Amino acid sequence: MDYLPEIEKEIQRQIARLDEPHTTQLHEMLTYHLGWSGENADPKTRGKRLRPLFLLLTCSACDGDWRSALPAAAAVELVHNFSLIHDDIQDNSDKRRGRDTVWAKWGIPQAINAGDALFILSSQALFDLVPGYSHEIVARAAIILNDACLNLTRGQFLDIYYEKRKDLSIEDYWSMVSGKTAALLSACCALGSLLGNSDQATQDAYCSFGHYLGLAYQVHDDFLGIWGDSAVTGKSSQSDLVSGKYSLPIIYGLGKNGSFAKRWAEGPIHPDEVPGLADQLATEGARLFTQETADQMTDLAMQSLRIANPKGQAGEQLIEMARNLVNRES
Amino acid sequence: MDYLPEIEKEIQRQIARLDEPHTTQLHEMLTYHLGWSGENADPKTRGKRLRPLFLLLTCSACDGDWRSALPAAAAVELVHNFSLIHDDIQDNSDKRRGRDTVWAKWGIPQAINAGDALFILSSQALFDLVPGYSHEIVARAAIILNDACLNLTRGQFLDIYYEKRKDLSIEDYWSMVSGKTAALLSACCALGSLLGNSDQATQDAYCSFGHYLGLAYQVHDDFLGIWGDSAVTGKSSQSDLVSGKYSLPIIYGLGKNGSFAKRWAEGPIHPDEVPGLADQLATEGARLFTQETADQMTDLAMQSLRIANPKGQAGEQLIEMARNLVNRES
Repeated sequence: MDYLPEIEKEIQRQIARLDEPHTTQLHEMLTYHLGWSGENADPKTRGKRLRPLFLLLTCSACDGDWRSALPAAAAVELVHNFSLIHDDIQDNSDKRRGRDTVWAKWGIPQAINAGDALFILSSQALFDLVPGYSHEIVARAAIILNDACLNLTRGQFLDIYYEKRKDLSIEDYWSMVSGKTAALLSACCALGSLLGNSDQATQDAYCSFGHYLGLAYQVHDDFLGIWGDSAVTGKSSQSDLVSGKYSLPIIYGLGKNGSFAKRWAEGPIHPDEVPGLADQLATEGARLFTQETADQMTDLAMQSLRIANPKGQAGEQLIEMARNLVNRES
Repeated sequence: MDYLPEIEKEIQRQIARLDEPHTTQLHEMLTYHLGWSGENADPKTRGKRLRPLFLLLTCSACDGDWRSALPAAAAVELVHNFSLIHDDIQDNSDKRRGRDTVWAKWGIPQAINAGDALFILSSQALFDLVPGYSHEIVARAAIILNDACLNLTRGQFLDIYYEKRKDLSIEDYWSMVSGKTAALLSACCALGSLLGNSDQATQDAYCSFGHYLGLAYQVHDDFLGIWGDSAVTGKSSQSDLVSGKYSLPIIYGLGKNGSFAKRWAEGPIHPDEVPGLADQLATEGARLFTQETADQMTDLAMQSLRIANPKGQAGEQLIEMARNLVNRES
């Protein structure tokens, strides 16, 4: 089943609420960010729409009618993009997928509005689930999405808050990534199973699946950020060692208080030092620890998925997508 | 009936969702902004909680149980404060009610998160209306609030967008203030009557009442911004003539293309010029036009309120609050 064209159409339909004479530019900011308009707009600049795909596949794997769930699929993608627009302002990032970010193009004040608008549109989208679902189910969907959004903002807060701290523990790391990466993916799977009319135990299993998959994804991402091909060879400037990001292997290495921690304390790391320092970190056990943690989270995700018992072709696609997410090489 | 302590308690209860070990500082940003903590925290720094008051008075004036509507009262105040936090970033305002603004104290990235968090908390608050109300009523409440939020963001977008334009019409002005000022007040009255279990015609009348009252409030505010006591005598630096804000009398004056428009085109206005220029604007008809427009909007609000037919002591309080809002001198 090719869900993507239907997802794209539904997001466009939701965004169209702002396609009015007075707010043409606000609408344009959103269509630009979503990869539909402006310079270099093409499918590659749109992102993979992973979250709506997880939602719809989960719905189908519960024998639900995925077409009725499309407004929720649009809602999760809108939430994701609200957070990206505000994130780019907060991180002072002027490029995303090779294009100028919204704030770089229209300024910070209007970029804040564009993010706010996307978030409101996501809330509105959910109510289009009526009349396909009862008001009670829609309310439960809204509660799931709101909880995820609050966790997302919590994670975003912690990410910035941690920048000034030097004594981060692995527990601090889990608090941050549970919000920043896992909360929305978990909500996608919870929403998909809710809208697939599955029972509470199945919903809980899908919710855990999304949560652990989100954690596994992030830990694997942290692994690639230091030992991935592009982080070591050629693009050392993109290594997490250079950006100074508190990723899992770095927090682990700092906790060891060895040569790596000593070098880290001395100040910013130059790209030339990256291969040597990545090796040092591996010698101190961070590579093995990160790999094992990613595997552990993947196992927990897959255990939850087995309990959820996804059905049919959608179930197979869901398993395959989850595997790709935690086995990717870049 | 003294609603304020109950409103305060309910807002505190909603904010408490973030009162957790890892997010202490995020919670603190919100309690500071809401006037409960930090330097100079006292009732004067809290704002008047006008929006929750309008909501609860409307609910009572429809013979509804205002206590059941408290989560919605908290929600509208949270929305208002979400917009203030983001607004202060967008306007580069470092003071609000005599205190540092959130971004001035914690930086722009965390202030964006604080605003986002308030907005999400407002959405969550509404679902606490269950079990006092059916899921269908709660869904209708959420749709009303979401629509108001989108209009609020539209208005905020236009306010910034208009800064660069020089050919604003009075129609442009209405588009902006309908969103920025009237949308949320209208939603408060609509929500109050919905939660007071009134019929659709009454809800529509309250919705119009809030809309026109919001417009009357803004036009009166624009009047005071040029001819109010503090704008002319003593605090000329606070005149809208100096800040260059496109308020109704200024847009009217520019449309006349006379001496006022000529001076405006020459560049920023010095506080010393304010009394003379305010007189010139009055001579060109802007004072009378603004006063008449405010009266007209007030009349429309009061007509709608008569149709809504508010009952009892709450009804009288509602009429009095509306009158105070459009007759205030500062």
